[in-house]
Amino acid sequence: MLIDGLQCGHFTRETFADLKRGGVGCVTITCGFWEGPLETMDLIGRWRDFGRANEDLMAFARTGREIREIAASGRVATLVGTQNTELLSNRIGFVELFADMGLRVMQLTYNTQNSIGSSCYEPVDTGLTRFGREVVQEMNRVGVLVDLSHVGNKTSLDAIETSEKPVAVTHANWASLYPHKRNKPDDVLRALKEHRGILGCATYRNITGDEYCRSVEAWAGMVARTVEMMGIDHVGIGTDRSHNHKEADYLWMRKGRWTRGGGYGASATGSLTPVAPADFFREIHQIGVIPEGLRKAGFSAEEVDKITHGNWLRIYDEVFSPGEERRAARAA
Amino acid sequence: MLIDGLQCGHFTRETFADLKRGGVGCVTITCGFWEGPLETMDLIGRWRDFGRANEDLMAFARTGREIREIAASGRVATLVGTQNTELLSNRIGFVELFADMGLRVMQLTYNTQNSIGSSCYEPVDTGLTRFGREVVQEMNRVGVLVDLSHVGNKTSLDAIETSEKPVAVTHANWASLYPHKRNKPDDVLRALKEHRGILGCATYRNITGDEYCRSVEAWAGMVARTVEMMGIDHVGIGTDRSHNHKEADYLWMRKGRWTRGGGYGASATGSLTPVAPADFFREIHQIGVIPEGLRKAGFSAEEVDKITHGNWLRIYDEVFSPGEERRAARAA
Repeated sequence: MLIDGLQCGHFTRETFADLKRGGVGCVTITCGFWEGPLETMDLIGRWRDFGRANEDLMAFARTGREIREIAASGRVATLVGTQNTELLSNRIGFVELFADMGLRVMQLTYNTQNSIGSSCYEPVDTGLTRFGREVVQEMNRVGVLVDLSHVGNKTSLDAIETSEKPVAVTHANWASLYPHKRNKPDDVLRALKEHRGILGCATYRNITGDEYCRSVEAWAGMVARTVEMMGIDHVGIGTDRSHNHKEADYLWMRKGRWTRGGGYGASATGSLTPVAPADFFREIHQIGVIPEGLRKAGFSAEEVDKITHGNWLRIYDEVFSPGEERRAARAA
Repeated sequence: MLIDGLQCGHFTRETFADLKRGGVGCVTITCGFWEGPLETMDLIGRWRDFGRANEDLMAFARTGREIREIAASGRVATLVGTQNTELLSNRIGFVELFADMGLRVMQLTYNTQNSIGSSCYEPVDTGLTRFGREVVQEMNRVGVLVDLSHVGNKTSLDAIETSEKPVAVTHANWASLYPHKRNKPDDVLRALKEHRGILGCATYRNITGDEYCRSVEAWAGMVARTVEMMGIDHVGIGTDRSHNHKEADYLWMRKGRWTRGGGYGASATGSLTPVAPADFFREIHQIGVIPEGLRKAGFSAEEVDKITHGNWLRIYDEVFSPGEERRAARAA
């Protein structure tokens, strides 16, 4: 089974059929970039509709146990995530309420500064703010995974230090292998590892580079070097694959409602045309070549299992459990 | 054990201590009258804070099983309800999301016309609207009890007919015993009974009248006449007790944001001074006199059990279960 720690875009029935065909047992979808609480609830509502219409192919999961059960039933376990915290509208109490609505992964910042901390594109990194600290602790309490993928390095280090639960960089690469503001330097990855966290290696060309996108062997080689640095228990997959993205979607991702300019986000040129997927991942179902690619890169079967799903499951089990414990405790 | 189908106002730690002292094992609180979705989430958030600070006295319940377990542990099981549907902001999808946040009872209208139907104070009763029909069906699906207490009679009859699950008038009386727009005429109560629903008899003086408020024996006599009309399986308690209400609270209840006038709501004069509680229910813990009052009115022990909690539990078990089934089915 494959677990993909981050995908985005417009998922269709065909998307899930292709994910299933590619051996994906669990995927975290992006339920919003810039959306506030009501807009996010509208998006969740639409995902619920989608889920009811496609329950033969996918189901929403809230726990590691549910992920295993859904995947075992031949469907794609779907984790609801957001790539920003705008949905909180600065209310600490909304963390728990969105967790109740099924939110399981929340990135602290998208591409701009917010009340929680700095994005990787800010000239000044505030670090995790006072509110940010509250939010991380609350996410720990209610069982939402802290995602640092687009987050600035100082803010990331603070969040890793603050979080009692392991945190994730769901979709990025090691900056020493491909320098990019979105990729993570040694100190962040070291801290991530020391706090039992995980890096989901991306296949997104803008932050992976043409060289590692050339073949699954090349990409698996990048993963192997990352594992050498971080250890086999702290690396997973987070492709950052965008489904059915059109110019309007890139406009929304790159500009949101905060700028009349351009050039922001992972595209150096600010281009609004879709970037080509990795050469070995042109079709969604081709994600299925990854396990074999990892084996060819020298990983043992056990190591491949850790990278493809075992490490994610360990994190999910540890992070999501509070919600379950809370439900069990409610009537205790 | 006593189950009170509706209370409102500002609950304090002392309120719950007094409810417990009075033998209340379960109470539905009013989490909003006119509040939209974000305001309602803020109120839910504050209730969560309150719950954490007072977990020795109360806990939130989402199922009949949880009600029994919490009450058995010597605490007050608390059901989250609203007296209006403004929180939906006309989104059908929000019914499920608020159910996820713990909402278990929702009154279709408060004192004004809305997109779902008519209040008991409207000159023209639209009946249940097309959207209202969707909402009732969705409440059935996700396990939220339909409350018709302030709802107009035609809208109520439509909702009773539409709902596949039993519905409730959580806090009102039989209009033949005390004529008031808030009380329910024979045809509504007959339909309610035929569809396995329940009337929660109120002690609120404005809709109960001085005569029945004079003593618990007098009030139990009113209940006895109601049972003669509706049958022993369709009558419960819904005091409509307001805790710690001040003028600002009455202003909000009576006027909300929709009128510069006054005179609306259950007070014929539009008075904003608190109305005196029933003579036998001046202090909260005195609710504990009700079982003995019912026995003195001639009810058997088994009948008293039905009125004080058994009928509510039957309704809750039947209505709330879909949510549990849904959770169980998610991973199936």
